[in-house]
Amino acid sequence: MEPALAQLRQRLAEIDDLSRAQSVLWWDHDVWMPSRGGASRATQLATLEGLVHGKQIDPRIGELVDELAPYAADLPPDHLDACLIRVARRNWERATRVPVELAAELAQTEAEAHQAWVEARENDDFAAFRPWLERMLELRVRWAGHVGPDEPPYEVLLDEFEEGLRSEDVRAIFTVLQPELTALVAEHADDDADDVLRGPFAIDVQDRLSRELVEAFGGRWDAFRLDLTVHPFQVTFGQDDIRLTTRYAEDDLNSLFTAMHECGHGLYEWGSSPELDRTPLAGCWSSTLHESQSRLWENVVGRSLPFWRWFHPRVQRAFPDRLGDVSLDELHRAVNRTQRSFVRVDADETSYGLHIILRFELETALVSGELAVKDLPEAWNARFEELLGLEVPNDRLGVLQDSHWSSGSFGYFPTYLLGSVLSVQIAERAREAIPDLDEQFERGEFSELHAWLRENLYSLGSRLTPEDTIERIAGGPIDPQPYLRYLAEKLDAVAAA
Amino acid sequence: MEPALAQLRQRLAEIDDLSRAQSVLWWDHDVWMPSRGGASRATQLATLEGLVHGKQIDPRIGELVDELAPYAADLPPDHLDACLIRVARRNWERATRVPVELAAELAQTEAEAHQAWVEARENDDFAAFRPWLERMLELRVRWAGHVGPDEPPYEVLLDEFEEGLRSEDVRAIFTVLQPELTALVAEHADDDADDVLRGPFAIDVQDRLSRELVEAFGGRWDAFRLDLTVHPFQVTFGQDDIRLTTRYAEDDLNSLFTAMHECGHGLYEWGSSPELDRTPLAGCWSSTLHESQSRLWENVVGRSLPFWRWFHPRVQRAFPDRLGDVSLDELHRAVNRTQRSFVRVDADETSYGLHIILRFELETALVSGELAVKDLPEAWNARFEELLGLEVPNDRLGVLQDSHWSSGSFGYFPTYLLGSVLSVQIAERAREAIPDLDEQFERGEFSELHAWLRENLYSLGSRLTPEDTIERIAGGPIDPQPYLRYLAEKLDAVAAA
Repeated sequence: MEPALAQLRQRLAEIDDLSRAQSVLWWDHDVWMPSRGGASRATQLATLEGLVHGKQIDPRIGELVDELAPYAADLPPDHLDACLIRVARRNWERATRVPVELAAELAQTEAEAHQAWVEARENDDFAAFRPWLERMLELRVRWAGHVGPDEPPYEVLLDEFEEGLRSEDVRAIFTVLQPELTALVAEHADDDADDVLRGPFAIDVQDRLSRELVEAFGGRWDAFRLDLTVHPFQVTFGQDDIRLTTRYAEDDLNSLFTAMHECGHGLYEWGSSPELDRTPLAGCWSSTLHESQSRLWENVVGRSLPFWRWFHPRVQRAFPDRLGDVSLDELHRAVNRTQRSFVRVDADETSYGLHIILRFELETALVSGELAVKDLPEAWNARFEELLGLEVPNDRLGVLQDSHWSSGSFGYFPTYLLGSVLSVQIAERAREAIPDLDEQFERGEFSELHAWLRENLYSLGSRLTPEDTIERIAGGPIDPQPYLRYLAEKLDAVAAA
Repeated sequence: MEPALAQLRQRLAEIDDLSRAQSVLWWDHDVWMPSRGGASRATQLATLEGLVHGKQIDPRIGELVDELAPYAADLPPDHLDACLIRVARRNWERATRVPVELAAELAQTEAEAHQAWVEARENDDFAAFRPWLERMLELRVRWAGHVGPDEPPYEVLLDEFEEGLRSEDVRAIFTVLQPELTALVAEHADDDADDVLRGPFAIDVQDRLSRELVEAFGGRWDAFRLDLTVHPFQVTFGQDDIRLTTRYAEDDLNSLFTAMHECGHGLYEWGSSPELDRTPLAGCWSSTLHESQSRLWENVVGRSLPFWRWFHPRVQRAFPDRLGDVSLDELHRAVNRTQRSFVRVDADETSYGLHIILRFELETALVSGELAVKDLPEAWNARFEELLGLEVPNDRLGVLQDSHWSSGSFGYFPTYLLGSVLSVQIAERAREAIPDLDEQFERGEFSELHAWLRENLYSLGSRLTPEDTIERIAGGPIDPQPYLRYLAEKLDAVAAA
């Protein structure tokens, strides 16, 4: 099997190299590119995309995975070669099932619909966006029909971001979560609280603190960078080349949590076993698992009391004028404050889930055809009020706030909440393995947690299916109960302090 | 001819897109990449290089240029299509003539020899570098034998950087220059002068001034960037995406001249006519012409008295402690001081040419076989003393100072001096067209010069051969006399002030 395997590996490695090159071009586009450079960059990216796609659908890959099937069948399922052949087959099949014209139409419409969304949001004009959303929805449903002709389209869309995930599983978890979250928000929401986290906080000091947090969590600057973008993200250029981006605003300290969030993504990618390098198994392709790590570092660690016992004097020294008088309990309460608000990305840990559940309900209805795009704003506003008890004042703060649907990413939202839920399950397992975790956090020590996650999760990359990975790291499937306990305990503790 | 032409254009556009993508990856490598990212980046660049090379030697390009030959023959030679077909043929022939194994060996040896050079230079150990230089020389001569089997190898190497340039032309010019430059240096060298340009000069202020100079010369930040690298360079990512890099040191103001130099390169590329975009005619591929523009803006403009009449109060306000007492004449003298020194990149305008002539003499002798690599240091040191009157103390300050030969770039050095010579011819033509140029410089106005160069030179891109371009912009071939007059006049004026 050696020659066939080597040939397959070579082809996958080239696809990986070119995809990373695309990432570099995108990253530069978002981080550094002069504003007028966009037209040339779009052409370069399109050319690269055409090359990558051509390599992805190369019939030779299909032949090679067929040739290798008997070899793979004799291997233990978690053997590297078996994993590689399984993922190569999945990616090749998904790529080849989409007609070239449809792929091109999707790419073109994505770009145009995204631009239409930017303008519609600016002008609070859903009517202008509506035809684009209808078009995008129709194309995505057609796409799903090609990729998974025997499945309802939403199942195929979910599977794109989270292999094997079924909407019935999502619904089962969200059905447990929703009433509990609504109740927690109703009980704890503190809409008028005076926020000690209001600035001004000097940007250069925020930047220094952000870098200190990345270092404390285990990031190293010989393999990481932190730069500025409008929308923070993490992207991997190579085994030892991890790029984080963040943003700073003088009037709040959200940047600290953004740094911890993106660092969590970065540590996951960085921990991928070197033997997976230049294969589609490198890094983590499951949105749920990825998000579990950004949330673990941002929330389970970064909003915990032990963490703040360590960080409180540091942030006080950094901003003596603003925080010199603010006690540990006040600060810990401030970063865990529950507050009903309209915008998902500004939401606290508890209400966040309700924002996601709303989107999941609406996007499943859109994709199944139960809900028409024209009725979407009304449905959004009505359900938002039921879930969060607030009346949505306009579509800018409502249905137009997120970009995901404009780019056809139906099926992505659920992974945000599933990741949060899973983060608590994983943290509980880490705590079993490292009983003095809190004491370590209080001393600013995160290396044992990092090492445990690296050994038990990050190093796996995408070898196993998300389901098998979750089983291995969490000891079972995604379970909403630990998450609900975690939220309730924290909110009670914060209220009592 | 339309379908064939469209097919050719499409192929050339893809090559251009991928080459620009390579440039982005290289630029990031030099500007931002974390130190451990190098291994992944090398693989990605090698994969891209393989793809680009595959497209460059595609037999279909050869067929298309053959098909298009009769069409091109009927066009005026400066018609866009004729130029495109001519350059496409040249590039395709040069690429296809090199056996794949030789190209791979060259790429591999280049990387290794460069690393060997870095270490040899650090340790002042020519003996360690010698086998690499011998290997590189042998490979390059073999390469030249494939590309131009009927020509002496040095002619083929020269032609790589400067299409059509012959060593006899270079020698004719350098033979005129050398005794005159040696005499000027002997007369004006001021080796012990107290330098008013010694720092400290705060880096952030140098950066602000550098940006002001780029703006003053016509660069716009919606299409330009200026970043930091160890070795400054300019690279073009697209029609409106021009990247400059520079470096700052607290103890001198060289950064101002670096900014003007790289800005000159950038303005040339930026001025390329939009109709040339995504073709091999975009931007300037002639090293001589390119260098003529970096030198024109850096030296002919940036070291002129009229420029300093404008800039003197500005730089005084920027560094009041260091330059508040320094008069215009003192400053102008300082930035034009002739000083014998060992290192080319630190050399003044006048002695610079002698550094180049030395390299030209030695590399022609190396390539022809008259000079053995083992005898190179001795030859260097002996000739250096004849040309510049200084005894070379070690190879670090001698034969090991430049990287060019380590990467096999024999034939590149002459273009530096030819560019300087040409810059004065072009400036004289500009002055004929814009009689009050000096008065404009004194007011800090450079837009009319920029517009004239853009219209008469930059917009041409690489449509014409370098020879024809030089003829058109300078009114004749490269001529050392205006350059010698310019140096002599300036040095006399500086001495008299």
